[in-house]
Amino acid sequence: MKEYFVVDVKPFNKKIPARKGEDILSTLIKGKIFITSSCGGKGVCGRCKIKILKGDFYSEPTGKLSDEEKRNNIYLACRTTILGNIEIKILPETIIPEKVEEKLFEKGEEFEHIKYNVKEFFSFKPLIKKVFLRLPRPDFKDNLSDYERLIRELKKFENKEFNIDIWNLRKLPNILRTSFWEITVSYVDEGKISEIINIEPGDTSRKNYGIAVDVGTTTISASLIDLNKGERIKTEITFNKQASFGDDIISRIVFAEKKDGLEKLHHVVTETINELILNLSQKHGISLNDITSVVISGNMTMVHLLLKINPSFLRKEPYIPVANIFPLFKCAEVGIRINPNGILSIIPGGFPYVGGDITSGIIVSGIYKEEELSLFVDIGTNGEIVIGNKDFLTCCAASAGPCFEGSGVKNGVRAVKGAIEKVKIENGNVYYETIGNEKPVGICGSGYIELLSELFRNGIINRNGVFVIENEKIKEVDGIKEFLIYEDKNEKIVITQADIENLIRAKGAIYSAISTILKTLGIDKNDIKKFYIAGGFGSHLNIEKAIEIGLFPDLPIDRFKFLGNTSLLGAEGYLLSDEFRNLSKEIIKKLTYIDLSRSPIYMEEYLKALFIPHTDL
Amino acid sequence: MKEYFVVDVKPFNKKIPARKGEDILSTLIKGKIFITSSCGGKGVCGRCKIKILKGDFYSEPTGKLSDEEKRNNIYLACRTTILGNIEIKILPETIIPEKVEEKLFEKGEEFEHIKYNVKEFFSFKPLIKKVFLRLPRPDFKDNLSDYERLIRELKKFENKEFNIDIWNLRKLPNILRTSFWEITVSYVDEGKISEIINIEPGDTSRKNYGIAVDVGTTTISASLIDLNKGERIKTEITFNKQASFGDDIISRIVFAEKKDGLEKLHHVVTETINELILNLSQKHGISLNDITSVVISGNMTMVHLLLKINPSFLRKEPYIPVANIFPLFKCAEVGIRINPNGILSIIPGGFPYVGGDITSGIIVSGIYKEEELSLFVDIGTNGEIVIGNKDFLTCCAASAGPCFEGSGVKNGVRAVKGAIEKVKIENGNVYYETIGNEKPVGICGSGYIELLSELFRNGIINRNGVFVIENEKIKEVDGIKEFLIYEDKNEKIVITQADIENLIRAKGAIYSAISTILKTLGIDKNDIKKFYIAGGFGSHLNIEKAIEIGLFPDLPIDRFKFLGNTSLLGAEGYLLSDEFRNLSKEIIKKLTYIDLSRSPIYMEEYLKALFIPHTDL
Repeated sequence: MKEYFVVDVKPFNKKIPARKGEDILSTLIKGKIFITSSCGGKGVCGRCKIKILKGDFYSEPTGKLSDEEKRNNIYLACRTTILGNIEIKILPETIIPEKVEEKLFEKGEEFEHIKYNVKEFFSFKPLIKKVFLRLPRPDFKDNLSDYERLIRELKKFENKEFNIDIWNLRKLPNILRTSFWEITVSYVDEGKISEIINIEPGDTSRKNYGIAVDVGTTTISASLIDLNKGERIKTEITFNKQASFGDDIISRIVFAEKKDGLEKLHHVVTETINELILNLSQKHGISLNDITSVVISGNMTMVHLLLKINPSFLRKEPYIPVANIFPLFKCAEVGIRINPNGILSIIPGGFPYVGGDITSGIIVSGIYKEEELSLFVDIGTNGEIVIGNKDFLTCCAASAGPCFEGSGVKNGVRAVKGAIEKVKIENGNVYYETIGNEKPVGICGSGYIELLSELFRNGIINRNGVFVIENEKIKEVDGIKEFLIYEDKNEKIVITQADIENLIRAKGAIYSAISTILKTLGIDKNDIKKFYIAGGFGSHLNIEKAIEIGLFPDLPIDRFKFLGNTSLLGAEGYLLSDEFRNLSKEIIKKLTYIDLSRSPIYMEEYLKALFIPHTDL
Repeated sequence: MKEYFVVDVKPFNKKIPARKGEDILSTLIKGKIFITSSCGGKGVCGRCKIKILKGDFYSEPTGKLSDEEKRNNIYLACRTTILGNIEIKILPETIIPEKVEEKLFEKGEEFEHIKYNVKEFFSFKPLIKKVFLRLPRPDFKDNLSDYERLIRELKKFENKEFNIDIWNLRKLPNILRTSFWEITVSYVDEGKISEIINIEPGDTSRKNYGIAVDVGTTTISASLIDLNKGERIKTEITFNKQASFGDDIISRIVFAEKKDGLEKLHHVVTETINELILNLSQKHGISLNDITSVVISGNMTMVHLLLKINPSFLRKEPYIPVANIFPLFKCAEVGIRINPNGILSIIPGGFPYVGGDITSGIIVSGIYKEEELSLFVDIGTNGEIVIGNKDFLTCCAASAGPCFEGSGVKNGVRAVKGAIEKVKIENGNVYYETIGNEKPVGICGSGYIELLSELFRNGIINRNGVFVIENEKIKEVDGIKEFLIYEDKNEKIVITQADIENLIRAKGAIYSAISTILKTLGIDKNDIKKFYIAGGFGSHLNIEKAIEIGLFPDLPIDRFKFLGNTSLLGAEGYLLSDEFRNLSKEIIKKLTYIDLSRSPIYMEEYLKALFIPHTDL
C-alpha cells in the first residue's frame, strides 16, 4: 500500500500531499510552487535549495552544499525524499517569480519595441478577419440553407472557399434567428480554404483581438493586439515556469523524456501563457471570447513542448524537428484558453536550433532585403546568429545559458525596476544606477556586462575572471569569493566567482559563435555594416563595455543597433500582415545552417573566447 | 430535497433509479430500455403500454386503454409518474427490437441490393486512401523535418496539398522511428486539401475500411465496406431507437425542442449506429481503428439529429435546413466510434423533406441520365417521389408513417425470417407464406399489401377498409375488430381495423403524392416509362396487389423495378466513388421541389386516395 504524507511549505503555508519516497522538487511542482533547478532534477546544478524545518526525510550526500548551508538544514529538493510529514521553507532566491514585469513597457521610449509598428513596414492584413453580415431573411423563394446563406454573403467580402466546424454549425440556426439575421463572423483570412472561427449575434466586428507570444526558454512575453487597428494594446512578460525543469533546452528535452515529463512541461508552459492572456484581457476589459488567435514565436524546443510533441529527436543526430512549417491548430487542442474555436499559429522555423523566433528576427531586422552585409544576434538562453543580406542568409546557434536574463547568477534579475543596469568602479568605490532609480533589487544582464568590464579595468579580476586582489568588498563565503555591490540591513547584492565564470562562458559562447560563422564563410568582421542586437538587453546595454569584455567583436559603435524582443515583434507581425506570413515561409527556405557542434573550428574559437576580452585581438 | 426510487423492470430484472414524479417512459429510456411511443410521450398514440406489478404511482386517466387492459394493470408509460419504488413489466409487443436482422442480406439473391456493385457504374476512387510509404531516413544532408518528409513522399502518390491535425503530428516522431521509417498513411482523397486521417507503423494499407449508413426514421442499416476492393463485406439492419420518441420526423422534431430532447435523440441514434459498427467489425475481425470513414445517407431531420443540430426550423416556415452540402466532420465530434481521427461525411440533400437519402436514390436509379421519363419512389416512414429524366428532376415528400416498415401496426415486423410476406384468402381460408418458410412471427410490409388486397377482393372489407362481414376469423377485442391470420397456443397474428386504417392512410399518402406531382407538372401517368421502387419492400412486393389497393398508379407491370435500399447503396457509392460524390452535389442543384402542404390540389388528391384502390379510376 502506498503511504501519503503532507509537505507543509513555508512561507506560503501550502500543504501538498506526497507519496512516501517522492522527492521534494517533484512535490513542489505538483503543488505549483516553482523553484529554480537548472539541471531539471538531476542533482548536478545544486540550485534547488530548500530549508527543512522538521520532519522525516532522507537526503543524498552532495558536494553542492556549503558547510554553513548544511549547518542551517539546507538541502537540495531534488535529492531529498519524503519519509513522513515534513515542514520546509522556500528560500527567496530560488523561487521563480510570477508576472514580475507587467509594467516593463511603460518605460516606453527606452524600448525600440514600443516604437515598432508592423503596419509601417508590411501590408496590413490580420490573420483573423471579422465581418458584420446582414443576411437576407429566407422565404419560400429564397430558401437556401443557413450555412449556404452565410457563405453566399461572406463571398461578397472574400471570394474564396470557406469551411465550418461542427461547433459553429450547431450554433448557426439559433444565432441567425435570435439575432434577426444580423451576425458577425470571424474567419482565418489565409490559405486556400478559410476556416470560420466564430459566429456571434449582432455586430461585434470592432472586437477583434489576437495574442502574439514569444515563448523563450527563460521568459515568456505576450502582446494583446487589436487586429482591426493593427495596434499593440499592451505587452506583459513573465518567467517561463519550465525553469523548474532545467535552465536550457537540452535539460528540458531530457526532462521531457522522463515519465510524464512532456506532459508536465507542456502543462506549465500553457498555464504560463494562459495567465498572461487572462491578465492582459482582464486589465483591458476584453473578453477571452473576443480573442480568436494566438501566434507563437519561439525556438523549436519550446514549440515542441508547447504542442506536447516529443522533442527528443531535436537533441539526437541528425537533429530533426517534427515540422518546419506547422499547420494551424485550435488553441483548445493545445490547452490555450481564448475563444473555444480560436486558432493557434506557429511561426515557421528553419532548423532545430534556429526556430521561428529567429525567422521573426530576420524579418523584423530587415537583413533579408539589405544590400550590405548585416549580422543579427539574438541573445537569450540560446544565442542565435544570422549573417547575410538580400542574397544569402546563414545562421548558427550557441547555448549562452540564462545569466544575461538574470537567471543562474546569484543576484540576477531581469530588467525590472530596481535592477542595477549601470556600474562604475573608481578608487575602490562602486557606483551604480538602477532602473527607475529605485532601491536595488539585483543585477540585470546589462549591469553584469558593465560590472565585468569594471572589475577587469580596475584589476580586481584578471583575464580569466579570477579575483586577484583582496579588499573589504571581497569576502569568501563557503569557499567562494564574492564582490559586494550593495548592502543594507537585510540583504546584500554581490557577484560571486561562480557568477563570473558563468558570465564568461555565456559571452564566450556568443563571441565564438560569431567568430566561427565569420571564419567559416570567410568574411572579415569589418565587412559587417550593421550589427543588430535582439533579446532582453534592450538599449540598456553599453556596447563599448560589451566589446571590452569580448561579448561582441570590435566594430565601430555606430554599426550596432538594438532591436529589442524581435521574437515578440515577429509574432505581432505574423498576426497582422500576410506579407509577413508569406515572408516567413520564404525566409526559412533561403536560410542555411552551420552546426557549431560539427564545426572543425568552433571548440578552438570557444576556448579562445573564455578570456576577457578574448585572445582574438 | 429530491426523492429517488427504484423502478424494477421485468422481465429484464433491470433496476433503474428514478426521481419522484418522473414518468416511466423517461425512466425506461434513461435505463436504455426502448419501447414504442409513436407520439414521443404526448399521451396521444397509446402505444407505450406497460404492466405495473406493484408499487406507488399516479397514472392520468386515458381513453387509450381498453377495459380489459385496465383490469390487467396496463398503463401508458408516458402518462404514469413514479411516487415510490415500483415494479413493472414490459409487454413484448412494445419493445423495439435490437439487431433483429443481421442475417437479412444472407438471403442474397432476393435483394437487388446485394447485386449492386458501385464499381460497375461509377469510377472507383474511395473517400479514404491508404498508402504505404518508405521514407528515406534523415541524415545531415537530407535533414527535412518529419512532417515535411512525410509530405514529400505523399506527393509522389498525389500531388496536392495535405493537412495534418495535432493528434497525428504528436504521434509522428515516434511512429516514424519505431517503424524504421515505414509507415502507412490514410488521407481523405477529396477536396483541395487532403486531410491526413491516420498514421500507422508498417504496412497496413490493405486494412482500409469504411462504413456506409442509411439512417432512416424507423430503421438504420449499415454496410461494412472494404475500401481497397470496393466491396461490401456485410450489411446489418436494426431499428432506430429514436422510435421511443415518436414515429415520424415531425414528432421527433417536436421532441427535440423539449429540454434535453435533442441531446437524447442524438444520443440514441449515435448509439444505434455505434452498435451496428461494433457488431460488423467484431464479426469480421476488423479493428475499429482500421475503419476511418463513415458516410451517412438520411433525411434532413435524421441528419440534424445525428449531428446534434437544432432541427426546429425544418418544421417552421419557410422550412430551412442548417445546410444542404455539409462539410466533413470528425466522427469523434459527433460521437461515432471508429478510428479516433475518422471522418464523417454526409450525402448532400436538396430540400428539408427530400434529403441525402433521395440524392442517393436519384443517382442509384440512374433517372438523372435517362432520356425517358422515370419516376422514383422511396417508401419508408416518409415517402419521397422524384420524377424526371436527364433534363429535369422534380420531387415531393409525403409522410406515410412506419406501417410498411412493420411498425405502428399490431403484428407488424420487418422483412425478417418468419415474416408473412404472401397472403391468399380463398373460401374463407387464409393461406400465407413466410420468409424462409419459418414459423410466422408477424406481417411485413409486402404481406400487409397482399392481405389488404385479399381482404378487399373477398369482400371482407369494403372500399373504406371497414370489416363488412362476420365470421369466426373476425373478433372484436376491446371494441376493435380484428381478423385472425395465424394462431397457436401462445400467440396469434391478426390485422385490426386500426391497422387497416393506418395502412390506407399510408398508401393514400404515397398515391396522392404521385398524382399531385403528375398533375402539377401536367404529365400523364402513361408517360412514365420506368417506375423505380426503393425502400424496405424489396422484391417481396406484389406489384399487382399494390396497384389493386391503390398504392401505385395503374401502369404495365414491366415498367416497375425494385431497387432495394437505395439510400444505403448511395452511401456505399459515396464512399467508393468520386464520380458519385461529385454527382451528388450536381443533382441537388438540378432538383426542384413541390411542397405538397402548399399545393392547391394535394388535399383533394389525398382524400380521393383514402379508398381501395382510390376514386381516380
